[in-house]
Amino acid sequence: MKSYNENLQNLLNLAPKWDFIERVSLDRALGRILADDIVAKSPYPAYPTSSMDGYAIKFTNQNNKIKIINIAPAGNSDDIAISENECVKTLTGALVCDGADTIVPIENVKLSGEYIEITRPVSQGFAIREVGESYKESELLLSSRTKLGYCELALLAELGYSYINVLARPRVAILSTGSEVLDIGQIKEHKAQIYSSNSISISSLLKDMGCEPIIMPIIKDDKQAIQTALQNALISADFIITTGGVSVGDFDFMRDITRESKIIIDGASIKPGRHIKVAKINDKFIFALPGFAYSAMVTCVLFFKEFIEHIFGLNKKNRFKAILKDNHTKKSPFEEFSAASITNENGTIKISTATKKSGSSAIVGNLINGGVLLICPSDKDGLKAGEIVEYIEI
Amino acid sequence: MKSYNENLQNLLNLAPKWDFIERVSLDRALGRILADDIVAKSPYPAYPTSSMDGYAIKFTNQNNKIKIINIAPAGNSDDIAISENECVKTLTGALVCDGADTIVPIENVKLSGEYIEITRPVSQGFAIREVGESYKESELLLSSRTKLGYCELALLAELGYSYINVLARPRVAILSTGSEVLDIGQIKEHKAQIYSSNSISISSLLKDMGCEPIIMPIIKDDKQAIQTALQNALISADFIITTGGVSVGDFDFMRDITRESKIIIDGASIKPGRHIKVAKINDKFIFALPGFAYSAMVTCVLFFKEFIEHIFGLNKKNRFKAILKDNHTKKSPFEEFSAASITNENGTIKISTATKKSGSSAIVGNLINGGVLLICPSDKDGLKAGEIVEYIEI
Repeated sequence: MKSYNENLQNLLNLAPKWDFIERVSLDRALGRILADDIVAKSPYPAYPTSSMDGYAIKFTNQNNKIKIINIAPAGNSDDIAISENECVKTLTGALVCDGADTIVPIENVKLSGEYIEITRPVSQGFAIREVGESYKESELLLSSRTKLGYCELALLAELGYSYINVLARPRVAILSTGSEVLDIGQIKEHKAQIYSSNSISISSLLKDMGCEPIIMPIIKDDKQAIQTALQNALISADFIITTGGVSVGDFDFMRDITRESKIIIDGASIKPGRHIKVAKINDKFIFALPGFAYSAMVTCVLFFKEFIEHIFGLNKKNRFKAILKDNHTKKSPFEEFSAASITNENGTIKISTATKKSGSSAIVGNLINGGVLLICPSDKDGLKAGEIVEYIEI
Repeated sequence: MKSYNENLQNLLNLAPKWDFIERVSLDRALGRILADDIVAKSPYPAYPTSSMDGYAIKFTNQNNKIKIINIAPAGNSDDIAISENECVKTLTGALVCDGADTIVPIENVKLSGEYIEITRPVSQGFAIREVGESYKESELLLSSRTKLGYCELALLAELGYSYINVLARPRVAILSTGSEVLDIGQIKEHKAQIYSSNSISISSLLKDMGCEPIIMPIIKDDKQAIQTALQNALISADFIITTGGVSVGDFDFMRDITRESKIIIDGASIKPGRHIKVAKINDKFIFALPGFAYSAMVTCVLFFKEFIEHIFGLNKKNRFKAILKDNHTKKSPFEEFSAASITNENGTIKISTATKKSGSSAIVGNLINGGVLLICPSDKDGLKAGEIVEYIEI
């Protein structure tokens, strides 16, 4: 079986580019991925602007009695100029009048009729936002493929954008299989039935990634029914994720179906996820993930998330370093991805698997409350407390 | 002026509890805040279950020739039992038959007709998920006020939930003011006008916090118009956030309005955000944030986010430690919150403000691409490279 890295490289080498662009209003763009570089068309501020409420003066007049000749509220567009020993009362956000080079805050002056006296002098240029303080003309402000958080949206709004080009969301069909598996909302009929969490977990994870999930009804382990569902999904979905039915047992019809086309990944020397398969049918990718909830989530992160980020053109770092807090023992000869928790201790990221339940790959609860995946390479038997190790955010 | 901590304590002491609960389907619950403790009603798995495809045997028969008497696919609910030297072919997820205590994977046996011979023995209990491996009866699985990510939703789905109680989203009206400010989508008419980013940034931030933002049209600095807008917002919104118009200048009508009621915060010795005001009108809270985009976002995080998390009953940690990478100089005598960037260097979180533009509180771009806020206490002139410092995630 191939390693995780070799499988992933093979997959990414075959991955298409995703250049399907959607135009959305800024108030619906949170979390979307920008499709264009955003470059400043003009400097900002475009004119010297006051950053405080104060009086716009010539710096060299600071020791004199200065006459207030006008008032400039924010939004004022009149051209105003001062001569020697004159000033303009200038409010926060207002353009600074011609001839002035400094704003003296209102708290720093004594007012007497039409005149001010400066009680606490300031430095030259004080409280003036120079042209281009925020950005210069032609400055690259946001790169294409930036994920839009509220700060990025603030910048776009300031630039005057009201609509923006973002990557369209790929439609991803999720097909969970398994004769023992109940659909969400279905009533339990006998003791061997279990509720599947895969539709809900994978669809929620896909939303976070920028995809549009379509949860298909659960299919029993029936070759014909699975084939029909896959064929329907292939018509309209961009990608398909299946869960369950991919181990080497008698009831594994998925394997037969995916063999009817090009297999890109056929198992990986990893735990969990040894039986993962990725196939291409009619130029569409099908990710056949394991059925156990923990394994399905982990392999979705390890393969599908990397795949989507690659086709989107994101340049995202998903692996981080931490210091191992407790010894960690490996369970298999494979590369292992184990549920772990991290804490920030005085600026050092400590990671531990001792906080998690040990057992099979079926334990969903191990990933809640901000869990991460500790990576233990295949050539090691375990990791020692104090070592610098790698983890993946999930 | 009071410190940030004193102001925040005063605010939180007066904050109401938010116990307005909404019932939502699990497929719409991503990012919502759970309203109940979730306790396991029964152990899971409820019966010993196979975690691999294999043969269910008595461990002590491992060296014998064993007869396959039945097959148990996942979902099978028939009661099956084995005697000495008998086994049941048992697929992943299937219940383990009575009398068996070990699963031998199919890769570890040689099949001859109706019999198996074990070529690679396993340990007792191998590949069996014991009753309660995932969780015991009465175990607390998720605490009330947990934010529901995909892993938490997976656990709820596994437990059989299809609908869940979550905190309803408070309606928060956002009222940006300023005569120089253009609404999103509005055409610029003269040079002194600027596009406001506050409606977009604050509304996006509110969505992340679990609120339902209502963006009101921008109001010019006109006392009557602002009062009318506030009165309309007070009818239906749970909370109100205003931006702009809160400094001590001539056009600051907001200040007059908030003085008509109980003022809870009237300025804070912090930078940015010195002029923040929080008032209570008719038992509703109004947060009057500064107009500059950077200041508005920072004060929204420092005050409104803490307020919402408090009334929601979240027990969230927002401050983290890091090692300062470059010397940092303070600009004011106040407690300062400066845009900074963090990197994980071999498990140590390094923070720096040297990567950010220096200038006024108007520079929105300083917070993009995962910025954080470095905290510099009021009694320090700056922070030295190598120091352990505190930062706030934004």
